[in-house]
Amino acid sequence: MNEAERKADTRHKIELGGLVLKAGFGDDKALVLGALLDAINRLNSADGLYEKQRFVSLGNAALNKK
Amino acid sequence: MNEAERKADTRHKIELGGLVLKAGFGDDKALVLGALLDAINRLNSADGLYEKQRFVSLGNAALNKK
Repeated sequence: MNEAERKADTRHKIELGGLVLKAGFGDDKALVLGALLDAINRLNSADGLYEKQRFVSLGNAALNKK
Repeated sequence: MNEAERKADTRHKIELGGLVLKAGFGDDKALVLGALLDAINRLNSADGLYEKQRFVSLGNAALNKK
């Protein structure tokens, strides 16, 4: 990974980390990672498409409210 | 926020953003934020304590596997 790629990667992580804080999570890494893994499990389940639409709808509503 | 606080805040976001990628999410901000908000809703529900324990257990298993 070159310097520019490393910077883009860092910016991307900062942006995603901002979403974690925006959602209301704090410092508990295990809680955050577990919540994310649970969501991935839902997305990979038989109801995945429904869950994806529900998540995107929730997320867009919050992003557009900021 | 002074320089040291700003740096700590950035480091924290990078760490949290790393968890989002580790869980398997990509670039879809709305999907990530929606999944996180859905998890927060679960944590604030009547089953919140159970959900918290489940999330922490899932998260710790993944953190200890790295």
